[in-house]
Amino acid sequence: MTQQPNTVATYAVTGMTCGHCAASVSEEVREISGVTDVSVDVPTGAVTITSSQPLERDAVQAAVEEAGYQLA
Amino acid sequence: MTQQPNTVATYAVTGMTCGHCAASVSEEVREISGVTDVSVDVPTGAVTITSSQPLERDAVQAAVEEAGYQLA
Repeated sequence: MTQQPNTVATYAVTGMTCGHCAASVSEEVREISGVTDVSVDVPTGAVTITSSQPLERDAVQAAVEEAGYQLA
Repeated sequence: MTQQPNTVATYAVTGMTCGHCAASVSEEVREISGVTDVSVDVPTGAVTITSSQPLERDAVQAAVEEAGYQLA
């Protein structure tokens, strides 16, 4: 069995102000099927997502909005 | 039985940036014995606490610090 390469993509999220905000976004994004890692940088709003296959932007947008924030 | 009047006091808390921060502070302050209501205004940092008897400032400070913030 061949190991699949991971997909890494960075999205810009607006409105996060603190670690609680980052945790909320991270929690929702981790629920997307295939996501293996999420890192959030609050000052820049950068959300970097590692996944086992490329994600639909709509799925990421829905997760971010579920957390109460917006994709830039 | 005579009804006791409530004590209402407002404290200034620094570092809260969003509703998650307010919820964290409120949750910790509500655990102080005698506290019946807490309201938090994030933009000003005002935390207004209603309690059945006057509170020790040290108890409020400990709760605020437990949440990760500071009394001004």
